[in-house]
Amino acid sequence: MKKHRKSDFPLDGIRRYLEPGPVVLVTSSWENERNIMVMGWHMMLDFVPARLACYIWSGNRSHCLIRNSRECVINLPTADMVDTVVGIGNTSAADGVDKFERFGLTPRKATHVGAPLIDECVASFECKLADDSLVERLGLFVWEVVKAHVAPTPKRPRTLHYRGDGEFMVAGPHISRKRWFLQQNL
Amino acid sequence: MKKHRKSDFPLDGIRRYLEPGPVVLVTSSWENERNIMVMGWHMMLDFVPARLACYIWSGNRSHCLIRNSRECVINLPTADMVDTVVGIGNTSAADGVDKFERFGLTPRKATHVGAPLIDECVASFECKLADDSLVERLGLFVWEVVKAHVAPTPKRPRTLHYRGDGEFMVAGPHISRKRWFLQQNL
Repeated sequence: MKKHRKSDFPLDGIRRYLEPGPVVLVTSSWENERNIMVMGWHMMLDFVPARLACYIWSGNRSHCLIRNSRECVINLPTADMVDTVVGIGNTSAADGVDKFERFGLTPRKATHVGAPLIDECVASFECKLADDSLVERLGLFVWEVVKAHVAPTPKRPRTLHYRGDGEFMVAGPHISRKRWFLQQNL
Repeated sequence: MKKHRKSDFPLDGIRRYLEPGPVVLVTSSWENERNIMVMGWHMMLDFVPARLACYIWSGNRSHCLIRNSRECVINLPTADMVDTVVGIGNTSAADGVDKFERFGLTPRKATHVGAPLIDECVASFECKLADDSLVERLGLFVWEVVKAHVAPTPKRPRTLHYRGDGEFMVAGPHISRKRWFLQQNL
């Protein structure tokens, strides 16, 4: 897998990567433990501050690390990483496996959080917990993105979008209607 | 635009249509008013009961209709409807326009909610408000889907996924890894 050198990216522009609905790899860290999980249930919530929400099942080890640290990194894999994504989804932290080693992924120190970035992903968003009022009842976490790292290319990454039943949709062609939008709706 | 004859669809299977992250058209109805809005910020929350969350800006007229009725229908448009989607996004309910008439969309009576289904969409999900505790603070609505209507074909609709800046990603090819998944993770 190719490593991506990423640059700072404006926080109010991260919708470009998350709003289309890709599967992401969430990294977490607490005390001497780190983990990676696959996540498909997330959404944007605001631009400034850059907020998003996600669902994390309480049965996942990552749920525990994330509740304790109140931080995570959301990393964006591309279609060439599909087998890594499936492999991570199949691997339980309970088996004592370090998923970075098992899947040949390269951790990189984040700026504001303890969880690592993943070099092989095209974008990584450092997140701090902004609201936990629905965590207990619904598993719903609200995040503020405090730092965004994005590879300058590809401009439109071929992201993976999970349909269930073992099937991914891969990001297809684009259509621009920019000239037709009212400016305030872009 | 083609109308889609839709059939009952199992509620625990709706992730297939929503989890990949498409733009949807949300219909609402309250007293003598109805509306349609474009929404891209939503996510799955549970299979049984079928739950999802979404963000709706308080400045949208639909926000008001939906808060009063505590119901909505989430309709799934396809790429051939891109200009209709952009048109609806550009049109304010404050102008007194009926968006069904303006955009040639056909309303159909829902089973459990007052808001109409849209015949031209390939899927429609009737929703009742399940949790409003973060509506005031974050604009975050939690829905239970109480009835799903889905067109038998296309099996993989070419949905629209908004990237911001007037640009949509269209659903591309699919990759199946079903045989590689642990059964409980499918």
